[in-house]
Amino acid sequence: MKQFYVGIGAVVEKDNKFLVLKRSPNKDVGANLWEVVTGRLEAEELPEIGTIREVKEEVNLDVEILMPIDTGFFYRGGKEFPMVFILFWCKYLSGEVKISWEHSEYKWLSLEEAINNPDLYLYHSRFKIIKKLKQYLPENFKLNK
Amino acid sequence: MKQFYVGIGAVVEKDNKFLVLKRSPNKDVGANLWEVVTGRLEAEELPEIGTIREVKEEVNLDVEILMPIDTGFFYRGGKEFPMVFILFWCKYLSGEVKISWEHSEYKWLSLEEAINNPDLYLYHSRFKIIKKLKQYLPENFKLNK
Repeated sequence: MKQFYVGIGAVVEKDNKFLVLKRSPNKDVGANLWEVVTGRLEAEELPEIGTIREVKEEVNLDVEILMPIDTGFFYRGGKEFPMVFILFWCKYLSGEVKISWEHSEYKWLSLEEAINNPDLYLYHSRFKIIKKLKQYLPENFKLNK
Repeated sequence: MKQFYVGIGAVVEKDNKFLVLKRSPNKDVGANLWEVVTGRLEAEELPEIGTIREVKEEVNLDVEILMPIDTGFFYRGGKEFPMVFILFWCKYLSGEVKISWEHSEYKWLSLEEAINNPDLYLYHSRFKIIKKLKQYLPENFKLNK
């Protein structure tokens, strides 16, 4: 039966701005691409917990999960690396951004800036999803259980 | 690097009723439990596509994906079977329910019936998520890209 790597992503929102990062030139895959916080489930953990952990590790922020907003499938680098991907909309709680060797730069962008930024073309559809949800959902909406 | 089985689930809505099924007494795991449509990604496919496929295979319905509403992690049966789980809210499009050997019974329940049905305790939190979203989102809202 088929097994997969599981990638997670976090669109982190703070005061209506969204954190985007430029992948380091030393990354094996996607060098210099702009993205949101991404990572992989490494342990047998809930995707939400793995996402909170990755955000802390990669950019030193504490966040909470608002809701899953997208899923996907791709090959990370090659066919031997099939990856299922889950993207969460997250809310900033505390901390100052500190990037690791994995990124060379970061910015906080408004939704419109993110949607119109050609460097973020891989994420335009995801930022549009958040724009759509924000039309209807109240501030601080959280799909908690 | 860690690999996982990927389980998907579909909460199928038709005219404000939700499809729930009783697992067959012959299932290796969770025999006789009530659930929604569930399955596994078997191919290298998008989770949304795999979900639409599983709904067709298991209950003979055509559906469209509205949005992901929950994710999870569990061991299916044993530790050798770590599974990441993605649950989608889906809208009925066409077809008549035909169950396979995997289920012995099915019902269409209102949200309140599902939330208050003790047999569906594993899904109460998920039906509550849909109830919460329905307070804000318009009819036929779809997180399309």
